[in-house]
Amino acid sequence: MYLDHAAATPVDRRVFDAMVPYFTEKFFNPSSPYLPAVTIRREYEDSKHRIAVAIGVKSDELVMTAGATESINLIFQSVRGHIVTSNIEHQAVLSAASRHGNVAYVESDPKGVVDPAKVAAAISAETELVSIGLANSELGTIQKMRDIASIVKAERIARRERGSMTPIYLHTDASQGAGQIDITVSRLGVDAMTLNAAKMYGPKQVGLLWVSRDIRLEPLIQGGGQERGLRSGTENVAGVVGFAVALELAVSHRKSESERLTTLRDSMQETLISAFPEMVVSGNLKRRLPGHLHVSFPGIDAERLIFSLETRGVYAATGSACAANKGTRSHVLTAIGLDPSVADGSLRITLGRLSTDESIARATAIIIDTIKKEYERGGR
Amino acid sequence: MYLDHAAATPVDRRVFDAMVPYFTEKFFNPSSPYLPAVTIRREYEDSKHRIAVAIGVKSDELVMTAGATESINLIFQSVRGHIVTSNIEHQAVLSAASRHGNVAYVESDPKGVVDPAKVAAAISAETELVSIGLANSELGTIQKMRDIASIVKAERIARRERGSMTPIYLHTDASQGAGQIDITVSRLGVDAMTLNAAKMYGPKQVGLLWVSRDIRLEPLIQGGGQERGLRSGTENVAGVVGFAVALELAVSHRKSESERLTTLRDSMQETLISAFPEMVVSGNLKRRLPGHLHVSFPGIDAERLIFSLETRGVYAATGSACAANKGTRSHVLTAIGLDPSVADGSLRITLGRLSTDESIARATAIIIDTIKKEYERGGR
Repeated sequence: MYLDHAAATPVDRRVFDAMVPYFTEKFFNPSSPYLPAVTIRREYEDSKHRIAVAIGVKSDELVMTAGATESINLIFQSVRGHIVTSNIEHQAVLSAASRHGNVAYVESDPKGVVDPAKVAAAISAETELVSIGLANSELGTIQKMRDIASIVKAERIARRERGSMTPIYLHTDASQGAGQIDITVSRLGVDAMTLNAAKMYGPKQVGLLWVSRDIRLEPLIQGGGQERGLRSGTENVAGVVGFAVALELAVSHRKSESERLTTLRDSMQETLISAFPEMVVSGNLKRRLPGHLHVSFPGIDAERLIFSLETRGVYAATGSACAANKGTRSHVLTAIGLDPSVADGSLRITLGRLSTDESIARATAIIIDTIKKEYERGGR
Repeated sequence: MYLDHAAATPVDRRVFDAMVPYFTEKFFNPSSPYLPAVTIRREYEDSKHRIAVAIGVKSDELVMTAGATESINLIFQSVRGHIVTSNIEHQAVLSAASRHGNVAYVESDPKGVVDPAKVAAAISAETELVSIGLANSELGTIQKMRDIASIVKAERIARRERGSMTPIYLHTDASQGAGQIDITVSRLGVDAMTLNAAKMYGPKQVGLLWVSRDIRLEPLIQGGGQERGLRSGTENVAGVVGFAVALELAVSHRKSESERLTTLRDSMQETLISAFPEMVVSGNLKRRLPGHLHVSFPGIDAERLIFSLETRGVYAATGSACAANKGTRSHVLTAIGLDPSVADGSLRITLGRLSTDESIARATAIIIDTIKKEYERGGR
C-alpha cells in the first residue's frame, strides 16, 4: 500500500518498454554521423517534439536535464537581477535562491497559497524572475498561476511603457502537477517551466526546463554543445524517449485519473476525520492536487507512526522525501504556521496509479488502527 | 561492423539486467523513510561502494553525476585559482577551462603526448588544478599520468616548505581508459578523477567525480542535499547500480580484453598500411589505448568516406562524436600539427566488445575496397 507517489513513482510498463531498445541495440551516440546514429538523433528529437506538443510549446525551446533540481539551478543561475519566490518552495528552489542571494520571499498564507497580490508587492523594478511552484509538494496546494502570470505580464508592459529594458519572467516548477492538473504552458501563462519525469511514472534523473524564446539561459554544464549549447553531455536517449511516453500518458489520462484520485482521496479524508475529529487537514481544500492529502494528528509522533505503518505494509511520508536533511521540521509546515505539536504528527499521503479502491480502503483501516494504538499508548 | 566504441557503447546485458528492477518494483525514493526505500538506499550505497573499490577509493569521496561533462564542470568551477590543462583535451574540459578563464594550455607533442616537463613549466605559484585526460579520445594516446602526478606532488611539497597555503591538485578524465588500461587511483597518483558509465557498456548520462578528501568542491546543482550536498537531485538508482556492474566487468576483464583488442587493432593497422603505404597512423604507437586506431588517408574526404562505409555496414568516426559542432576540423588534429589535407582524410577507428576477429577482418576489407574506389574516383 504505497501512499507516497509525490516522492517517487514506478516507471510505467509502456515507458519502460519504449526505453529498452535505447540501452541495447539503439545505443549509438546521437552525434555520430552514420545512419543508425542519425536515426537515433531523429528519434531523440521526435521524443522532444512529443514532449513539446504535450505542454504546448516548441521543441527547440526545451533543454533536457538530469531532473527538476538541475532545471531549477539552470534558470536561477541564468538570472543576474532580483528574484521573487515564496517561502514554501521545494528545497531545490530555496537552495538555488539562497545561492543567488538577491531574493524576496513571499510568505504563504496558512493554507499554502501564495497570494498573487503579495507577489505583486514583492516585485521591484529590478526583479527579473518570479519563481513559484505550480503545486506545493507537501500540501498539494495549487497556486493561482494565471493570476501571478497576469501580474508579471502587467509589470512587463509597464516597464516597456516607461522605457525600462529590465526583463521579467515567470518560472514554475510543475513537477508535482503533471498527470493531475493542466500543465499547458499557454493556459498557465508562464515563461519557463520545470518538469521531472520521475514524478510522472518516468525514469529518475530525467527532467527538462522549458523557456520561452525571449529568455537567455547561461549553461550550467558546458562541453560538446548539446541542447543548443545550453546543456552539454551525450544525450540521455533512453531517458528522454521514456519521458515523452510518460508525459503523453500523464496528459491523456489526466482527467479520468484526477477524478478517480479525488474520489479516493476524499473518501479517505472523510473516513479519517470521522475516526479522529481532532485531525487537522492542511492545504487549501479547494485548490489541491487530486492525490494529495496532508493530515496531522496532534500529539502523535509521525516518525514513529511511519515505522508502525511500514510494518503493516503502508508506506507514507512525514514530509518531502527530496530533502536529505532528515529529522528537521518541514519548512513548509513552519511557513504556514502549523503549531509544532501538530506539525510533528503530520502524514503526507499522496495517491497515484498504484492506489486502488481496495488498497486505499485497507490502508485507511490500518492507519486508523495504528493511530488509535499510538494514542492509547500515549495515554489518551 | 561497429568501429566507434569511443563514441558510445551498448549497455552490457548483465548491466541492463541489474538495472531493470530499479525502474519497476524498486522504484522508491532512496530518501524515503520506510523499509523498501531504506533498502534501496542501502543498495545504492552498496553500488557506490563497489565502484569505489574498483578504482581503489572510499565511496564517500565519490559524487555521482549525470556524466563526464558534468563531473568536469563540477571540478573546474570549484577552482578559483589558476588551472593548467592541455590543448588536446576533450571539448568538455576546454569549455569548462574557457569559462574559468585563468588557464594555461600545455601544447601536445605531434603524437598527442602531453610532456610532463611542459606541465611542470606551466605550473605557477597560483596554479590550483592540473587537468589532463588519461587517454586522448581521438588519438588514443595515453598520458604519462604518474610522471605528471609526481610533478604536482613535488610542487605541493615545495609550497608547504615555503609556507604557501595554495593547494594544487591533479584531475584526470579517465572516461576513455576504463576497461582498457589501469584506472586505479593510487597507481595513477591523481587527486581527482572523472568516469563515464556510457563509455564502459553502462548507461548514458551516468558518471562520477572522485575527489580526494582534501579537495573542497562547490556544488554545481543544489537542492535536497544528496551526494553530501555536492550534487542534489533524487539519485539515479538504476543508473548507479548499472554503473557499478559495468565498472566491475571493465576492471575484471581488462587484461584479457586489452590483449584481444591490441591483437585485433594491430592486425587491422598492418593490413591497412600494406594496402596504403601512404597512410598516416597518428598518436603514440607505444602508448595507445588497445582498441584505438587513428589513421589518415591523404587526399581522401573522410566525411564522404564515412558515408560510403556506412552503406556497406561499417560505422566509423571522423573524430570525436561528443562535439555537436560538426563540419569543423578536429582541434586535436590541429594541435598535433597534422597537415589539413591529411587531417581531412582521417578515420577514428575504436574497437571494443562488439569487435570480433570476423567482423574486423570484414570491416578491414570493406575499408580497403572503399578507399581504393575513392582514390580511383579521385584519379589516382
